[in-house]
Amino acid sequence: MKRTLILALMTSALAGPVMADALRDRAAAEFKPLPSTIPAVKDNPVTPEKIELGKALFFDPRLSASGVFSCASCHNLATGGDDNMETSVGHGWQKGPRNSPTVLNAVLNEAQFWDGRADDLAAQAKGPIQAGVEMANTPEQVEVTLKSMPQYVAWFTAAFPAEPDPVNFDNMAKAIEAFEATLITPAPFDAWLNGDDNAMSEDAKAGLTLFMDKGCSSCHSGVNVGGHGYYPFGLIEKPGAEILPPGDKGRFAVTETVDDEYVFRASPLRNIALTAPYFHSGKVWDLAVAVEVMAESQLGEQLAPEETAQLVAFLDSLTGTLPPVTLPVLPAETAETPRPSSEVK
Amino acid sequence: MKRTLILALMTSALAGPVMADALRDRAAAEFKPLPSTIPAVKDNPVTPEKIELGKALFFDPRLSASGVFSCASCHNLATGGDDNMETSVGHGWQKGPRNSPTVLNAVLNEAQFWDGRADDLAAQAKGPIQAGVEMANTPEQVEVTLKSMPQYVAWFTAAFPAEPDPVNFDNMAKAIEAFEATLITPAPFDAWLNGDDNAMSEDAKAGLTLFMDKGCSSCHSGVNVGGHGYYPFGLIEKPGAEILPPGDKGRFAVTETVDDEYVFRASPLRNIALTAPYFHSGKVWDLAVAVEVMAESQLGEQLAPEETAQLVAFLDSLTGTLPPVTLPVLPAETAETPRPSSEVK
Repeated sequence: MKRTLILALMTSALAGPVMADALRDRAAAEFKPLPSTIPAVKDNPVTPEKIELGKALFFDPRLSASGVFSCASCHNLATGGDDNMETSVGHGWQKGPRNSPTVLNAVLNEAQFWDGRADDLAAQAKGPIQAGVEMANTPEQVEVTLKSMPQYVAWFTAAFPAEPDPVNFDNMAKAIEAFEATLITPAPFDAWLNGDDNAMSEDAKAGLTLFMDKGCSSCHSGVNVGGHGYYPFGLIEKPGAEILPPGDKGRFAVTETVDDEYVFRASPLRNIALTAPYFHSGKVWDLAVAVEVMAESQLGEQLAPEETAQLVAFLDSLTGTLPPVTLPVLPAETAETPRPSSEVK
Repeated sequence: MKRTLILALMTSALAGPVMADALRDRAAAEFKPLPSTIPAVKDNPVTPEKIELGKALFFDPRLSASGVFSCASCHNLATGGDDNMETSVGHGWQKGPRNSPTVLNAVLNEAQFWDGRADDLAAQAKGPIQAGVEMANTPEQVEVTLKSMPQYVAWFTAAFPAEPDPVNFDNMAKAIEAFEATLITPAPFDAWLNGDDNAMSEDAKAGLTLFMDKGCSSCHSGVNVGGHGYYPFGLIEKPGAEILPPGDKGRFAVTETVDDEYVFRASPLRNIALTAPYFHSGKVWDLAVAVEVMAESQLGEQLAPEETAQLVAFLDSLTGTLPPVTLPVLPAETAETPRPSSEVK
């Protein structure tokens, strides 16, 4: 009896690391740890000058017509890179149509926006600045604004040294993209993927196993645990109209293909514990409920409460650490700087 | 002839430092350089724990009912500690009644708000959070919000260790005050007052001389070059109704004394070059124009263009350097955190 127990203990002691390695090997085939360096950006070399300029632009409310909103308003780096609202409040107190996605690690998504309509963060950055319900500005007005401040002209010239007329809307977007590329948040899951057995709790590891066993990872995989590939919301069973409003047909608006009705980009799940409320509608505030909605609608699964808890524990292990962001000192307006218009346009 | 010239040069070389010292001695009697350490705050010992908590609160939009505005929205540390608007946009896109003053060095003002109705920054901080046109929240809701997040409870407990129930509206205000006490911005004028002859240009020094000769410094003096004492706007000649709207009688609303009609606290002038537009109405965008309006309305003086330029050069020497502010990482909401209400109340 005693001997059997000792043997069992030994087996378990041996099996522990072996099992951890097996789980890690399996996970390594589906996920990827965050890189330890700033990701390269296609057609936009990331330089220190571009990062600094991009940081200033990211925090500058004068990119909005009203002077009220900056990129950081809806992508607040202090609250997980989003704004913790169902949908954002924008110009004239209008509400946006979809929940603001996090900007953290977004450079590693395959495309941007819930429907993937922007190929990259430079293209994305131009959207909210011009959207009437968000920053309500125009490229022309942005250029006049930036050119009115000599410090911005100097920063653009340093960031785009080869260009004769560097202060323009395209370069603004590229600089913002370069800054956003620095917003990489290594998490316990990365430490574990990189070999630190103690970085994740047993619950989180059990949740990871479920995440792969149940099929969550068929859509939410890769370095951002999602953020690539498009899938119908309600693959097995459509959620209620509050969560999936019939008026928002997702990627259909981009491709105009019937197959793309109610199709959305699989959400990247890094820092998901910080970015409630959930889904493009922002109607679910509780992560456990969001997990259950996904299990039912996408997998036709009713989760046991302990399964949900383990899945949430795994998702918690995706909460990462942002590199310290020091607030920029923005240039002062000049007589030529357009005045903010806080009236509704 | 040659000898006279050499003598003249020698005299001037000797006179230079002597004259600089005379100007410095005179300035030292009216102004004071910023301290090199965080100012002590009455009845609110400033500790590292309180500063860290206060920084989180200062940047937390969940102190507003809508979840849209934080202290930093109208007191943007990236743009001179104010929002560069005539009057701020607040809850439901309402406009506030007066221009947002800078929070930089505000701890050194004798009282807060344009009419001095708050004795200190802790009292001040409670105002906008409750104002219907600003953050539109209530002390009760703020306390529920803060108590819903265990990290905030831990931070309050660390910042107010002797208190049995530390998470409350008063302590929130004290922590914000402690953080704001760190926002001290030493400027070239301070370096010059401290003995560095080269810190100010000759124009700036000429402007300083005019500033004292003309009488600007009878109201704008002390460590913040203003920020203490109350004076009628339009002492000699009332400015136009746009700049001084008849409906806003300033300190009269606080004291209900006829003598206090159109009386305001003399503005602290540190960082004034960063904080356009000017006056409580925010109607003047150009610093030179603001200087001219002041000269006419308070001193009955028509300035020559070169005098205005020199005064502006002096005011430019008050633009200081903020200590680096790293964005806080705010606690995530829990199920108990009140949801943002972005509807107009």
